[in-house]
Amino acid sequence: MYKNLESMFSVNAAGMKKSVIRELLKLTQKPDIISFAGGLPAPATFPVKEIAELARELILREGDWALQYGPTEGDPRLKQEIIKIGERDDMKMDQENILVTTASQQGLDIVGRVFINPGDIVICGRPTYVGAISAFRSYAAAFEGIELDEEGMRMDHLRDKLKALRSAGKRPKFIYVVPDFQNPAGVTMSLERRRLLLDLACEYETLVVEDTPYRQLRYVGDHVPSLYSLDAGEGIVIDLHTFSKILFPGLRLGWVQAHKTVIDKFVIAKQAMDLCTPPFTQAIAYEYCNRGLLAAHIEENVELYRNKRKTMLEALETHMPEHPGIHWTKPEGGLFLWMTVPESMDMEALFYKAVEANVAYVVGTAFYADGGGKNHARLNFSYPSPEDIVEGVKRLAAVIKEQLSS
Amino acid sequence: MYKNLESMFSVNAAGMKKSVIRELLKLTQKPDIISFAGGLPAPATFPVKEIAELARELILREGDWALQYGPTEGDPRLKQEIIKIGERDDMKMDQENILVTTASQQGLDIVGRVFINPGDIVICGRPTYVGAISAFRSYAAAFEGIELDEEGMRMDHLRDKLKALRSAGKRPKFIYVVPDFQNPAGVTMSLERRRLLLDLACEYETLVVEDTPYRQLRYVGDHVPSLYSLDAGEGIVIDLHTFSKILFPGLRLGWVQAHKTVIDKFVIAKQAMDLCTPPFTQAIAYEYCNRGLLAAHIEENVELYRNKRKTMLEALETHMPEHPGIHWTKPEGGLFLWMTVPESMDMEALFYKAVEANVAYVVGTAFYADGGGKNHARLNFSYPSPEDIVEGVKRLAAVIKEQLSS
Repeated sequence: MYKNLESMFSVNAAGMKKSVIRELLKLTQKPDIISFAGGLPAPATFPVKEIAELARELILREGDWALQYGPTEGDPRLKQEIIKIGERDDMKMDQENILVTTASQQGLDIVGRVFINPGDIVICGRPTYVGAISAFRSYAAAFEGIELDEEGMRMDHLRDKLKALRSAGKRPKFIYVVPDFQNPAGVTMSLERRRLLLDLACEYETLVVEDTPYRQLRYVGDHVPSLYSLDAGEGIVIDLHTFSKILFPGLRLGWVQAHKTVIDKFVIAKQAMDLCTPPFTQAIAYEYCNRGLLAAHIEENVELYRNKRKTMLEALETHMPEHPGIHWTKPEGGLFLWMTVPESMDMEALFYKAVEANVAYVVGTAFYADGGGKNHARLNFSYPSPEDIVEGVKRLAAVIKEQLSS
Repeated sequence: MYKNLESMFSVNAAGMKKSVIRELLKLTQKPDIISFAGGLPAPATFPVKEIAELARELILREGDWALQYGPTEGDPRLKQEIIKIGERDDMKMDQENILVTTASQQGLDIVGRVFINPGDIVICGRPTYVGAISAFRSYAAAFEGIELDEEGMRMDHLRDKLKALRSAGKRPKFIYVVPDFQNPAGVTMSLERRRLLLDLACEYETLVVEDTPYRQLRYVGDHVPSLYSLDAGEGIVIDLHTFSKILFPGLRLGWVQAHKTVIDKFVIAKQAMDLCTPPFTQAIAYEYCNRGLLAAHIEENVELYRNKRKTMLEALETHMPEHPGIHWTKPEGGLFLWMTVPESMDMEALFYKAVEANVAYVVGTAFYADGGGKNHARLNFSYPSPEDIVEGVKRLAAVIKEQLSS
């Protein structure tokens, strides 16, 4: 191996760092730990028996096709099912508005590839989804963070930021949002803010990347229209979806909805990236949808997770110390809630104590592209059992109590 | 949609063009056409029944695992099977030398992401694999082409090129080769040239990217050691493999073998690209290998393709006009042979006439990163039936004859 191999890496690669989360998560592999750190769906929701039979029948019926290469754009039959999923959510699409991806992460990667030059500005939430940070950072994006509150991204702050950027002669490439049950904060953007976001994007001629993996997992509260539907075909919104949270993640299957001009470019980019998403996994998802199994399956997931969310909120209410700086969000859906502790408390330092006490979370800092977040933690309630949720919250509360009193 | 949307694309995306091949291939969708254009394995080789039963059993047995997220590096069980595949080919690896990819195209994309800055030099064959050109071009690589002959890349030309580049103060990032049954030329690099290639790479401190999707599909002639095995752990060679040609393409499953330092960086890059290759497809490939089915399956493929290759060579011998400028390679393996016609003949212009005559090929120009190739065509013999091979060659010969006499 050349001694100077490191010097051969591209500038973008030199900037790729090992994820702190990933390294911390390794500590959570020990037995007896109750982990709120992952973002995994509960395996109990996986329709194992149906998929086993369906996979067998499908391969026998159309193996010649499903085991062969497929079109880069995606299986047209699966795209037809995606159009139906959209219709039930007031989103109008044609085949040409859809690109099937190797799950949402690839959607983020394609967005980065097609839009970001080194140094280009991307606006995102403070906090925001860590996978989006990695994807956009790998294209050397410059991040501008906007604070969130209970109604999602602060539009007054966004307006100020856009104005300041324009004064400086800068035009952001896009505004990245997770409007529904945000990862990690668990908050949902209000309808009013969604409208404002689109208005601001138009006024400042920038795009909106809507990443909404949990949209169909709502447990309480009212449906809010997607940015894609509010955009009504204008083409300002690039909308990322996934089957990972509504079916199961092991297929690595998602899709992008956008204006034809954008999708056309995405298709060319994807061709150089992996030629096509596995026709095999697409055929399985198609078959599952086509047999009309998806709606009932999502309903089952919602029931299960609604209960787990309630369990976690009640456990936090019961066990967390009462303290002015300690609070958490009450998500209406999704997989996560977001805990805040007093500013003086460092959840990264506390992580090791938590692991000793056999409980884990993700440290808030992971979700800040531009620094910050030490006094936050993301807690996942979809994966652990209700019993583990209660016990894990007790353990976490004890660790925090001890820290408060020290 | 913004009128100036095009101006928002990244520099890299602006350089992404619709593939000429892809557009031409659309013409080959008409019925009655015999296509030598694709690069598809014959569906007759797909072990449909085994995969159907195996998929069912696997999902029932370990659905909780196979349908969940998996490690970015790949399923350790599949990596163990890959190590065994390597051992049978004199290649020594540990788990840390392997990254499972969403097929070889993703391997190429990761190589580009981790090594290429805009304007960086990549050395490749003239001709070379078109998918590698797209992948590296999407990172704005600058290509330097080296002629091939019957023994693969010309090492005298490579030495001259490396010397000239060094004089100009330039160090190429890597030399990209398809040493076994090259796509498109069908030629195999001799052992002597392989050794020379590694020596030159060392002398000029550059890496070698070995892309070898067809390595196990040899029909005649003697086994030649891989560059990876000749490198013997030095870490100069990054080696790309795929299950697409030895099992079937619909899984979109491949792997990269390289030095740990390189794989570590690739893992970080891949995490931002798609988190992980589908655990579901990896489990199926693992199970297939673990049941000991792969070796016999490859043997069957080899038998089938050996016959098709022979059929195509005989048909060309019988039907192609005798003319000093017309000849073709006689590949010892793989899926393709490479036809050369007189320099005055333009196979791109002739393509439309060929399609009219119901036969198709890929125009040589697709495989030249730096221009050229008009008097070449790539012919695939793995997909069409033996009868179609004979009839298709007759049609192509007639088109060429007519052109010669006009």
